[in-house]
Amino acid sequence: MADFDRFDRCEVTCIHEEAVSAVRQVMISDDVAQSLADIFKTLADSTRVKMLFALMHRELCVCDLAAVIRASESSVSHQLRILRTNKLVKFRRDGKILYYSLADDHVKTLFKQGLEHASHDEAWAAQFLDFIK
Amino acid sequence: MADFDRFDRCEVTCIHEEAVSAVRQVMISDDVAQSLADIFKTLADSTRVKMLFALMHRELCVCDLAAVIRASESSVSHQLRILRTNKLVKFRRDGKILYYSLADDHVKTLFKQGLEHASHDEAWAAQFLDFIK
Repeated sequence: MADFDRFDRCEVTCIHEEAVSAVRQVMISDDVAQSLADIFKTLADSTRVKMLFALMHRELCVCDLAAVIRASESSVSHQLRILRTNKLVKFRRDGKILYYSLADDHVKTLFKQGLEHASHDEAWAAQFLDFIK
Repeated sequence: MADFDRFDRCEVTCIHEEAVSAVRQVMISDDVAQSLADIFKTLADSTRVKMLFALMHRELCVCDLAAVIRASESSVSHQLRILRTNKLVKFRRDGKILYYSLADDHVKTLFKQGLEHASHDEAWAAQFLDFIK
């Protein structure tokens, strides 16, 4: 057994039946776990994180968003489609301009929690927490 | 231009300089965006979601955790290593038994927000919100 295995395993097999049974009763299904994992997967991309962070500050049109994160409109458009499908952003059309904003406050709270988690050890995280009110 | 492109783009290029400038001033760096994306990447896996959900309920030893999610100890051990490296879980040794628990309440809040987001449209999400107090 490798050293890292010893570090992450009990040295004997010891199942506490009462604990296992109690947790199984409230356990989420595979489908629910997958749906939850998919939400986090949408946020697990640095370009999408930057776009959401920008939209957290204010509503922006697609061209503005591309300029802010210094990406092509085509790339931003592609990522917006993913964010829209996952209901993280919403849009409104004003003439020829398409404005995007956050769908709700959940993204803000998710980012805040993520940054708070990171800020235990990372100075960079703490400073950005000030931005998310 | 494909239909989906028209749907996700402005029909003219129109950069609102004031908006772009204001958002750029508070924008996160590429490194910060990547670090934040990495946190969400740790949660973007259904096995790890199930393990964290189980630990949200109570502290469990490695054997218990494997029994709860019906996975091998080797697989659970591997995922625990990833969760530990990302500081989402902590452990204590009691003799030959290794007990794991959530590192802090951030995971709980992250899951709660994820479920709340999903519960706009999905009945499954709402029922599990009751579990996370």
